Amino acid sequence: MTVKVAVAGATGYAGGELLRLLLAHPDVEIGALTAASSAGTPLGALQPQLAPLADRVVAETSAETLGGHDVVFLALPHGHSGAIAEQLGPDVLVVDMGADHRLTAAADWQHWYGGDHAGAWPYGLPELPGARDRLRATTRVAVPGCFPTGGSLALAPAVASDLVAPDVTIVSVTGTSGAGKSLKPHLLGAEVMGNVSAYGVAGAHRHTPEFVQNLSAAAGRQVTVSFTPVLAPMPRGILTTASAPLTGDADAVRGVYEAAYADEPFVRVLPEGQWPTTAATVGSNTVQLQVSVDEQAGRLVVVAAIDNLTKGTAGGAVQSMNIALGLDETTGLPTTGVAP
Amino acid sequence: MTVKVAVAGATGYAGGELLRLLLAHPDVEIGALTAASSAGTPLGALQPQLAPLADRVVAETSAETLGGHDVVFLALPHGHSGAIAEQLGPDVLVVDMGADHRLTAAADWQHWYGGDHAGAWPYGLPELPGARDRLRATTRVAVPGCFPTGGSLALAPAVASDLVAPDVTIVSVTGTSGAGKSLKPHLLGAEVMGNVSAYGVAGAHRHTPEFVQNLSAAAGRQVTVSFTPVLAPMPRGILTTASAPLTGDADAVRGVYEAAYADEPFVRVLPEGQWPTTAATVGSNTVQLQVSVDEQAGRLVVVAAIDNLTKGTAGGAVQSMNIALGLDETTGLPTTGVAP
Amino acid sequence: MTVKVAVAGATGYAGGELLRLLLAHPDVEIGALTAASSAGTPLGALQPQLAPLADRVVAETSAETLGGHDVVFLALPHGHSGAIAEQLGPDVLVVDMGADHRLTAAADWQHWYGGDHAGAWPYGLPELPGARDRLRATTRVAVPGCFPTGGSLALAPAVASDLVAPDVTIVSVTGTSGAGKSLKPHLLGAEVMGNVSAYGVAGAHRHTPEFVQNLSAAAGRQVTVSFTPVLAPMPRGILTTASAPLTGDADAVRGVYEAAYADEPFVRVLPEGQWPTTAATVGSNTVQLQVSVDEQAGRLVVVAAIDNLTKGTAGGAVQSMNIALGLDETTGLPTTGVAP
Amino acid sequence: MTVKVAVAGATGYAGGELLRLLLAHPDVEIGALTAASSAGTPLGALQPQLAPLADRVVAETSAETLGGHDVVFLALPHGHSGAIAEQLGPDVLVVDMGADHRLTAAADWQHWYGGDHAGAWPYGLPELPGARDRLRATTRVAVPGCFPTGGSLALAPAVASDLVAPDVTIVSVTGTSGAGKSLKPHLLGAEVMGNVSAYGVAGAHRHTPEFVQNLSAAAGRQVTVSFTPVLAPMPRGILTTASAPLTGDADAVRGVYEAAYADEPFVRVLPEGQWPTTAATVGSNTVQLQVSVDEQAGRLVVVAAIDNLTKGTAGGAVQSMNIALGLDETTGLPTTGVAP
Repeated sequence: MTVKVAVAGATGYAGGELLRLLLAHPDVEIGALTAASSAGTPLGALQPQLAPLADRVVAETSAETLGGHDVVFLALPHGHSGAIAEQLGPDVLVVDMGADHRLTAAADWQHWYGGDHAGAWPYGLPELPGARDRLRATTRVAVPGCFPTGGSLALAPAVASDLVAPDVTIVSVTGTSGAGKSLKPHLLGAEVMGNVSAYGVAGAHRHTPEFVQNLSAAAGRQVTVSFTPVLAPMPRGILTTASAPLTGDADAVRGVYEAAYADEPFVRVLPEGQWPTTAATVGSNTVQLQVSVDEQAGRLVVVAAIDNLTKGTAGGAVQSMNIALGLDETTGLPTTGVAP
Repeated sequence: MTVKVAVAGATGYAGGELLRLLLAHPDVEIGALTAASSAGTPLGALQPQLAPLADRVVAETSAETLGGHDVVFLALPHGHSGAIAEQLGPDVLVVDMGADHRLTAAADWQHWYGGDHAGAWPYGLPELPGARDRLRATTRVAVPGCFPTGGSLALAPAVASDLVAPDVTIVSVTGTSGAGKSLKPHLLGAEVMGNVSAYGVAGAHRHTPEFVQNLSAAAGRQVTVSFTPVLAPMPRGILTTASAPLTGDADAVRGVYEAAYADEPFVRVLPEGQWPTTAATVGSNTVQLQVSVDEQAGRLVVVAAIDNLTKGTAGGAVQSMNIALGLDETTGLPTTGVAP
Repeated sequence: MTVKVAVAGATGYAGGELLRLLLAHPDVEIGALTAASSAGTPLGALQPQLAPLADRVVAETSAETLGGHDVVFLALPHGHSGAIAEQLGPDVLVVDMGADHRLTAAADWQHWYGGDHAGAWPYGLPELPGARDRLRATTRVAVPGCFPTGGSLALAPAVASDLVAPDVTIVSVTGTSGAGKSLKPHLLGAEVMGNVSAYGVAGAHRHTPEFVQNLSAAAGRQVTVSFTPVLAPMPRGILTTASAPLTGDADAVRGVYEAAYADEPFVRVLPEGQWPTTAATVGSNTVQLQVSVDEQAGRLVVVAAIDNLTKGTAGGAVQSMNIALGLDETTGLPTTGVAP
Repeated sequence: MTVKVAVAGATGYAGGELLRLLLAHPDVEIGALTAASSAGTPLGALQPQLAPLADRVVAETSAETLGGHDVVFLALPHGHSGAIAEQLGPDVLVVDMGADHRLTAAADWQHWYGGDHAGAWPYGLPELPGARDRLRATTRVAVPGCFPTGGSLALAPAVASDLVAPDVTIVSVTGTSGAGKSLKPHLLGAEVMGNVSAYGVAGAHRHTPEFVQNLSAAAGRQVTVSFTPVLAPMPRGILTTASAPLTGDADAVRGVYEAAYADEPFVRVLPEGQWPTTAATVGSNTVQLQVSVDEQAGRLVVVAAIDNLTKGTAGGAVQSMNIALGLDETTGLPTTGVAP
């Protein structure tokens, strides 16, 4: 089986990583590559790492250029996916790597993003309870935000099993590709190298409601989330440290996590004493997890590492595509990182 | 007034930063420079950035080589300061940049470091309540750990004024110089670049009891601390994100912090909306702070940036020396960072 | 066809990258993984990025552990490959990633490395004139040094066609993984980040005779090489800038390079105006090249980018293995980079 | 003596570094701080490292705001300095950190920059033969480009004493602050980290004619220069490797360099065997030099490290100001680097 795939937003970081994965996917034929301002440029000038696609010319993003494909990935600024998806018809698998269809509550959307809510689509984090089933045979997928990918998997088993109180603290340290290619002064190399800073502090980051949604669903009750993202001088990777007051049995913790992820091909609970590093996940669809109990502070502490562009965006998108198309979920997805 | 100063551990990162500051200090004459294995080497081969001291030959660390100075800084592995200090006599100002005399409780020392407790000395973080007075005219100073420097100042005003519950979560992202020049595989450049990782997780880091000691003293009651250090790919700097359940008036928060640090020359509460960056503090003795309330999560969130080698070690040491000698506290201490 | 492969030196950077490639190679079964001091350790503790091999235990490097495989890769310190190869028998394909069998002249070996010369093996840089033929059906391969890989390909077409005088200047900027995992102070993260330095300057680097050998062979006359390696703050990658006095026709330059590499699957002469970046080659077996003439200075200037661990070591090794085994040369070798 | 100083371009990297130095200069009072688009903003929001100036509001760059000062530093895009200098009057010391008055030949200016040539001013690299005298009592200074600063000092002694043929090759590896704060995609953190690339290759960089001018003047004959700049993942620093065919006595080389710089407070020829590192010069006005002979290749090889923002721009500017004002040349200029 070969599916023909189009990528809208092929010139950004998410689009580039997606194409790297699709080039290695045995069941995919890469069709239209589209973008906004750089339409007409050979892809090689914008994504020089994608040597096999260097001579492909970028087309304009439109229903016309994206039409006629089996699968369309949308890596667009928020607010643009709904209209395009409608024009593509219900039979095309549309995988939205943007934010438009992640939040289930219209009020949340309006509060955090503004404008009309485009509605929620099946959520592309198959490792969350129930999520995989909703992805099977769907033709619409909402890929999670990069922070909620690692952070939700870090805490879901604990809140689902009442190991902790529903009041969690998450600090996620991210590489700068998470901000995309937007030309902002604080993203210049001279600014980010040798520098660590926090942003979107105190509940101001738009991924906060997504955390609340995921963890509350897993817990079966409302979970309070204090989320702080931190920018670190590296291109890729997110290291999440998450903690919550321990209410269950400390001795049960490891078993709960190992059981939760025993059958997951992309989540690895590390052996005791080994801690996740983002480098080990670079270019890989793997989540590395470690869990521990701080007895003095009475808290469960979980650390999770992912590549924000792979498992955190493009890899999660391909994994969801595989499920939706009925392919083996792991097809074309690397589980080895490029390190050092 | 000119004081003659010796530095034990002159070849390490803390010693090098100390010498950089002392070279610019108008009241200091730099005397003996000592070390362990590299005695006999010209300093220029080991600290090439200290051009004015390039031809000075490193001596062996001993009571003899350190004797005959007005001030002796000790940047030694833990467990070595007490014996040397005794041999130097009570009139010499001994500033210990190691851990030996930070903890007041012998039981804490034994639990975290092992061996006999050398006793506590006045704590070199003058911005903590009462600390400055204890540093005046002392001849013994215990310089704080790098993490407790920024983290304690981030939370002390809040716990001291009952703005928050005594149950705090601290995640500190540090550059790799904090680990010193020890040759460990995980500190190699190829390992740390492009990589973020946590270590000493879940209460395992030795700075944890120092946090508890500082914050409990400030609060006047026992404070529980969940501390997680994170290693980031930069040479210098610590960004601390600290939070705790808000119990006081959200509107009072900014005023409490501004009042606490209004007269402090080295602590700067940033204007609202501006967040600390470690780059802005590189080579400077300044702490940059910002404070905010996450209403949804009901938490106070504080972010603090320091240079771990300057305010976090050598700058704090010089500041304490200035106080102990009766000099202007700010003498020789930069408040401008080297950025970008 | 499936070949069983052993890797000696599986815990180093070259060994790790090799295993990453072998895991994706359809014709390879990974057998023994060996090392020196870390024998007995699960590979996951040392190469956490190789998730599929995490539970494999490292064996001691010996003829016994390496025996019984079709192919043995040796990533050992120099001086160790010859003896082991002898014990493995003439039918086993031995691919030496070390220096032992690169130099053809015994005098060169003795001058640069000392000790007895183990003899030269077919040189694993198939893109050099004649090299590919010598690799076919050989059972011994000497993988080139990382610097000579990019630098030789940058200049071989020019010296072979008399475009330039046989007097070349090469400056190669490398990431720090090229130095391996050896614990040396100048390789610590705090030393290399924010820092660029030269080493092995003025003909002192051991890759110099390899450059001379490759370029003299290509030119058919003795070529003089001034080589300077420079260490830059990144884990991977080598950017080579090479130049020589132009003696041929400036207008012919591009044609000569395009013709030289027209059929090479792993060498890409970029479109005019686009310059190589190391990031575009990370994790890829590709060489990116650009060539230009400085009319004022009368020099040909070539810039080449590679990943030192992939095309510069492990990828070149797999490529040579493919040729020696009669497989398609490109099997299992990525041509897309992991960027950003 | 206190001079009142204005800085035009106070919000850029050169302006920020200049202000850091001026804050520590005992004879300077900082007056107007001006910029273009960010006029009206507090400096603290744009240069957070300059804590003592955080509340100063940036004014618009004009003859009015810059008038009434003893010294005016211009850190402006090229083409703007001449007109402003004329309006400031002949008695004001104008130090131009831009390119407008560096080149002596109008034809060079027109070729490399275009438009009318504003004329040459005394060149602010006092270590070049004759330059210091021309700076004394001038009221106009042209600060050198960052690359020609280190590269000219690396080669001037050799070409001046006929140690080498007048045909030099220079490769300079620079941090990204050299490109300023301009918002270009290739300067984003995600692009520069983990990446090395060349640009302005084959004589295309505008600093090339400045090299030719400096070295030809030192040599007393025309010198041919092949210059290649390389971008490396660090905020600051330039490492220059320069070489030329050795025509003189190899044994004389070290003596020539040591003699040339014996009395220079900011140029340090390192002890034999020690090589320059950019980290050792960060924030310092020092040039670190090492010189060696490659006997095989018959070339002199020189390596020089500077901080592009300090000695390469703002430090050189202050040094020139000191000379022009008759102050001690070293006043206010650090010779210790901030490392690691």
